[in-house]
Amino acid sequence: MGNITNNMNNIIDKKEIKELKEKVLEANIELYKSNLVSFTFGNVSGINRERNLIAIKPSGIDYKNLSVKNMVLVSLDGKLLTSDYKPSSDTKTHLVLYNAFAEIGGVAHTHSRFATIFAQALKSINCLGTTHADYFYGEIPCTEPIKDDAIQRDYEEETGLLIKETLLKKGIDYKNMKACLVANHGPFTWGKDPEEAVFISKVLEEISIQNLYTKLINPQVTEISKVLLDKHYLRKHGKNAYYGQNSKLK
Amino acid sequence: MGNITNNMNNIIDKKEIKELKEKVLEANIELYKSNLVSFTFGNVSGINRERNLIAIKPSGIDYKNLSVKNMVLVSLDGKLLTSDYKPSSDTKTHLVLYNAFAEIGGVAHTHSRFATIFAQALKSINCLGTTHADYFYGEIPCTEPIKDDAIQRDYEEETGLLIKETLLKKGIDYKNMKACLVANHGPFTWGKDPEEAVFISKVLEEISIQNLYTKLINPQVTEISKVLLDKHYLRKHGKNAYYGQNSKLK
Amino acid sequence: MGNITNNMNNIIDKKEIKELKEKVLEANIELYKSNLVSFTFGNVSGINRERNLIAIKPSGIDYKNLSVKNMVLVSLDGKLLTSDYKPSSDTKTHLVLYNAFAEIGGVAHTHSRFATIFAQALKSINCLGTTHADYFYGEIPCTEPIKDDAIQRDYEEETGLLIKETLLKKGIDYKNMKACLVANHGPFTWGKDPEEAVFISKVLEEISIQNLYTKLINPQVTEISKVLLDKHYLRKHGKNAYYGQNSKLK
Amino acid sequence: MGNITNNMNNIIDKKEIKELKEKVLEANIELYKSNLVSFTFGNVSGINRERNLIAIKPSGIDYKNLSVKNMVLVSLDGKLLTSDYKPSSDTKTHLVLYNAFAEIGGVAHTHSRFATIFAQALKSINCLGTTHADYFYGEIPCTEPIKDDAIQRDYEEETGLLIKETLLKKGIDYKNMKACLVANHGPFTWGKDPEEAVFISKVLEEISIQNLYTKLINPQVTEISKVLLDKHYLRKHGKNAYYGQNSKLK
Repeated sequence: MGNITNNMNNIIDKKEIKELKEKVLEANIELYKSNLVSFTFGNVSGINRERNLIAIKPSGIDYKNLSVKNMVLVSLDGKLLTSDYKPSSDTKTHLVLYNAFAEIGGVAHTHSRFATIFAQALKSINCLGTTHADYFYGEIPCTEPIKDDAIQRDYEEETGLLIKETLLKKGIDYKNMKACLVANHGPFTWGKDPEEAVFISKVLEEISIQNLYTKLINPQVTEISKVLLDKHYLRKHGKNAYYGQNSKLK
Repeated sequence: MGNITNNMNNIIDKKEIKELKEKVLEANIELYKSNLVSFTFGNVSGINRERNLIAIKPSGIDYKNLSVKNMVLVSLDGKLLTSDYKPSSDTKTHLVLYNAFAEIGGVAHTHSRFATIFAQALKSINCLGTTHADYFYGEIPCTEPIKDDAIQRDYEEETGLLIKETLLKKGIDYKNMKACLVANHGPFTWGKDPEEAVFISKVLEEISIQNLYTKLINPQVTEISKVLLDKHYLRKHGKNAYYGQNSKLK
Repeated sequence: MGNITNNMNNIIDKKEIKELKEKVLEANIELYKSNLVSFTFGNVSGINRERNLIAIKPSGIDYKNLSVKNMVLVSLDGKLLTSDYKPSSDTKTHLVLYNAFAEIGGVAHTHSRFATIFAQALKSINCLGTTHADYFYGEIPCTEPIKDDAIQRDYEEETGLLIKETLLKKGIDYKNMKACLVANHGPFTWGKDPEEAVFISKVLEEISIQNLYTKLINPQVTEISKVLLDKHYLRKHGKNAYYGQNSKLK
Repeated sequence: MGNITNNMNNIIDKKEIKELKEKVLEANIELYKSNLVSFTFGNVSGINRERNLIAIKPSGIDYKNLSVKNMVLVSLDGKLLTSDYKPSSDTKTHLVLYNAFAEIGGVAHTHSRFATIFAQALKSINCLGTTHADYFYGEIPCTEPIKDDAIQRDYEEETGLLIKETLLKKGIDYKNMKACLVANHGPFTWGKDPEEAVFISKVLEEISIQNLYTKLINPQVTEISKVLLDKHYLRKHGKNAYYGQNSKLK
């Protein structure tokens, strides 16, 4: 992580930066309230694309003690912009994702129980039902285990690169698949803002539970048809969506 | 969904319609409180058989924001009778059930965790104990997966037809079996009113959990005897019931 | 169930009977608060051995509406002593147990989730650890499925006889084993008073969960040694107990 | 357990002893609040290394009734220093651990559900993910079942010796592995003070759950690489730690 750049202090006081910090704080608290966080694990960040900087949870601080003041600012190229607190130890992973996925506005990382279980089992979560299809456009990918030399080079940065490459290799569009399991570790999720990243983390946990028990009672179960997947995902997403009050009447 | 029929506005203000909306609102809130709803999934409707119209939850509205005002009215042949909110995207499924099952007064749909797991596993829930037999007269059916051309024709209507045909094919009387799992999707339940439909959803969830774990520890377990099934179901239902304070002393 | 015996009304107002009803009410409420009751299933009774009568929960009444007034009195030979409410439909099962187990003071019946799962799976719960051994002296028995002709003769009475005979056949002393699973149905528990019967129901549920998951991860696991079983059970029960403040210092 | 030593009463009133009792009380209450205690099982102790005495929970007292007054003092060689309450029946196990592990300041024992399940299954908990690696440096050991003659000699003391020998035999350093499962029984944990011992009990329970389900969905899963284990454990522990606010910026 780079050192503090003093001449950026004037940016930090701007209203838009305060709002970013508030959103990131709220999303971190929501993550905690949703029981997705074990102990102090779990962190959410948000980006200001004009300023090319992110706000992120400080490292190892209890959720009860979080406030706007201890949200940490970091530039998109990794320079620390505030001096009071260290940012989350996973900050570099977040930065890789913001650089790789040009239109996302927020990233969340949890050790939520059942998503973590799939990550530990080195298993992607294939699509077995419409609850899954409503939010994730197909199989939720799990990376390969990180290589020893990648851990030794720059563990947190390499974790981000692993996510990026997994989506690339599998031909997955990050706009339709807002989650990836990091093998042996846990899930990262993203969205248009920190709030959506947290929401996706919540849905992911429920989908993980449903997938696990479905396979326990029917190990031979296969994925739903492409037509059913399209129907549900596109009923809620994209220009022909007809779910909710903001879409046109069918 | 058809357009609004203006000359029915005078009906909408009638006391009986307001009461229907209230019942449907209460049942939707009870569904939410019972933890049977994941995110905004889940909806309850009720019917006024004299007016041939139903009240149903609006589409994609958070449970916290539900009120009598945003309950949507739809005629039994699918015409939208109120203009402020779009009805649940599952409305056509409800309508098929009201048309097929002449004596029901309420329908509920959830993505409750364990009933959904059975739907995803394409498994009916066979009767392994008296808790099941007290409420469901035999195996709770799961449909076949919906066909691709049915999805493309009219997904929500075909879902209703699938439920209707599943009961028909299996020789099941909807009065003794107030639930059906839609494969890859989740459960629909019904009853004499919206309240009973929700209650059946609750019981279904507990029965699903008990069935799943029973099979995990004894995969060879078989259904209970017909005599035991009759004893329990008929102890609570029908003219010879002797359970509860409203039945005669044995 | 016999008719009301009017000349026993003077007994009903006695202080000792009021106290019995209060204890039974409290135990039923504790059962409900402990989440051992699904819907209106579950009932607790207590006995006055001098008067040869029991107090028991009324049939099908919501736990929220229970009061001392609606506790029902029944004589040990099955005569109804109060007229306002019907007793639990399981009353005859309770009566058989009070007659068979001369020193018990309370009986509880639940459909608690995991004890019921073992009953549905037709599996006894063998002793895999010291938590079990602290409360149950060996395997917690499950009956055979009840026979069709027994159901047709007198279902609830035959359920009690099944429990009695299961203990007899397996050589189990009801003083050291205060629980029995009724196949396809659920657990009955007992103790020196209604409170202990409920406490045993609570412990049984936790033991059931621990036993089930232990076997999921190690299907080959065997019972603990007789010496360890004796050590734990006798550390808490009988004349050489040294656990708790009432026993002598070791 | 030895008799009371009257001439130590003057020690008992010292401020440092009161503080020890308070810490032990708080840790016991935290154990209870964390749902790690079934019934009255579970106890925490703390040591004053200068005085060579421990404070420990009294035996069989409900958590609701715990106070500083009923914390029991025992010398490191097993003499009872206070006379009002009997100490936890597991006291001798605690004493063996304080004698064997020279730098620990607190010990906790629970029957928490999933750690107990692994103990009952006679299974060590191998390291499948980074949540585990953040707190436990490798496989969490499970002892062999205790031998019958050891139970008969001095059960509680032998339980402590079993833990000590298990770590010795497996070449495990108690400073990097603050937990051990006692076969057929449950977990013991330790730390620099009673608070850390309880915290480790909490983490152990979550790790147990994640390990169990991971193996249910992937029985072939293997341990994480040594490099990943080192990375995570050493990121949080030891002189090169960079997690949290107290460590240096990377």
